[in-house]
Amino acid sequence: MSRIAYVNGQYLPQSLAVVPIEDRGYQFADGVYEVCEVFDGALIDEPHHMARLERSLSELRIDAPLAGSGLSVVLHEVMRRNRLTNGFLYLQVTRGVAPRDHGFPQKPVRPALVVTAKSIDPRKGEALASKGIAIASTPDLRWKRVDIKSISLLPNVLAKQEARDKGCYEAWLIDEKGFVTEGSSSNAWIITQEGKVVTRAADHAILRGVTRTTLMKLIAELQLPVEERSFTLAEALAAREAFISAATNLVMPVVMIDGHPIGDGKPGPIASRLRGLFHAAAEKTEWRRR
Amino acid sequence: MSRIAYVNGQYLPQSLAVVPIEDRGYQFADGVYEVCEVFDGALIDEPHHMARLERSLSELRIDAPLAGSGLSVVLHEVMRRNRLTNGFLYLQVTRGVAPRDHGFPQKPVRPALVVTAKSIDPRKGEALASKGIAIASTPDLRWKRVDIKSISLLPNVLAKQEARDKGCYEAWLIDEKGFVTEGSSSNAWIITQEGKVVTRAADHAILRGVTRTTLMKLIAELQLPVEERSFTLAEALAAREAFISAATNLVMPVVMIDGHPIGDGKPGPIASRLRGLFHAAAEKTEWRRR
Repeated sequence: MSRIAYVNGQYLPQSLAVVPIEDRGYQFADGVYEVCEVFDGALIDEPHHMARLERSLSELRIDAPLAGSGLSVVLHEVMRRNRLTNGFLYLQVTRGVAPRDHGFPQKPVRPALVVTAKSIDPRKGEALASKGIAIASTPDLRWKRVDIKSISLLPNVLAKQEARDKGCYEAWLIDEKGFVTEGSSSNAWIITQEGKVVTRAADHAILRGVTRTTLMKLIAELQLPVEERSFTLAEALAAREAFISAATNLVMPVVMIDGHPIGDGKPGPIASRLRGLFHAAAEKTEWRRR
Repeated sequence: MSRIAYVNGQYLPQSLAVVPIEDRGYQFADGVYEVCEVFDGALIDEPHHMARLERSLSELRIDAPLAGSGLSVVLHEVMRRNRLTNGFLYLQVTRGVAPRDHGFPQKPVRPALVVTAKSIDPRKGEALASKGIAIASTPDLRWKRVDIKSISLLPNVLAKQEARDKGCYEAWLIDEKGFVTEGSSSNAWIITQEGKVVTRAADHAILRGVTRTTLMKLIAELQLPVEERSFTLAEALAAREAFISAATNLVMPVVMIDGHPIGDGKPGPIASRLRGLFHAAAEKTEWRRR
């Protein structure tokens, strides 16, 4: 079955899904996005993704692409048309199409909206989580408002590729003071030798991950000691456990950073436990086959 | 006459010019661009633009979109088909189309190439230059490799719009040490009370403007004293003259910064002289009507 994409009001085979060359997303990275997990037929943490999207759009002064629950209707329709049971929805909103000019369009334009679906086999993620992943550290070269989930992602692309070139799965970005900010497409966590779960506070230097937020709730329910604060690369190397979080990876144990094993070099028990309990803690919005 | 765009091998009416939603330019800002001036039927400083493009592509490990002189042929054909006598060519190269994934595509893909043309009335620029422009300063929030002319331009968009909201034509970006880096889409220059022409050295914090390079050559020919060094906002406010340079603005005198008049509040004689002599100093590649 060919994948179906939603593009500016139309549902189309993805191979025919196009946007004008003067879409400001293409010329200026003037847009935002969300990636939402679909698990066992349910859209995970939809209200949180919608709230974050709204904030990103508001920070950039881009109007909502659809009024009221319109976007939610589109998301669920894309799930339905793609028979998406396990995988991801990708949604992107740009400022719209206008003659090229750095400033906002002089005449108001409609925001552009694209939604796509991708099926995955959840066993692949489980297999990866049972082995754990390797991290490569690299300087954080990104702009100063990465709390906005924008498509201005070139520095993230370069960091991710640098990690892959080193045989690693993800990059951890290091700020000018030596602190880990986050991964190129994930939040970064460690568990100290004292058993404290540590992740950076959600300032302008990281994206407030939806998965991070759900994890915080889960960690509180489990009454694990937690600290929202910056940590250095050295502290990460000395940690008992480490992991990343993202809608695409849930909780993914880190077993190596820059070639140094973390803990005993195997996925840690707390990371594995959080992964196992994640979906029970998340909010689920189901779609029904018609 | 409708404008003609070149898109991945085809010349099309611009209204029909589209790219796939999975072009990495649209989802990751994973691409670079150039804007070249066309003046009196000649493409200005083409070799410099091509050299910079090549460098930008190389830094991002994107292949050249066309071999040999292919790109030059396309640029001149777009000029010809649009009967472009005065205006700009815009060209954009992205890494290509691939399933969404931050890292480079696992299977090699062809870079995507888009070229468009825009006619302008040169009298408009002259009218603006005779009055001069106002600048608004704002913190430089951009990433740390703006020497690469990438389409990851969201911070530039926001700075330009902030300037417009304040009734100004351009923003000057201020780094963490209080130095002016450059404009949101131009290089920044001042002329000190001692008559020295000052512009920031071309480090990773600014784009090495093609117009800047040609101006440097012209300034040397005129034997004006010049210093490539950082300057503060305070130094700019106390300058005798100020101006910006860009292919789209050539040399544009600055008469006000953050509401403070520069010099006597009128376009300065050196800026005006450099503007007047600019095209004589630039390299020109003509196209002939067939």
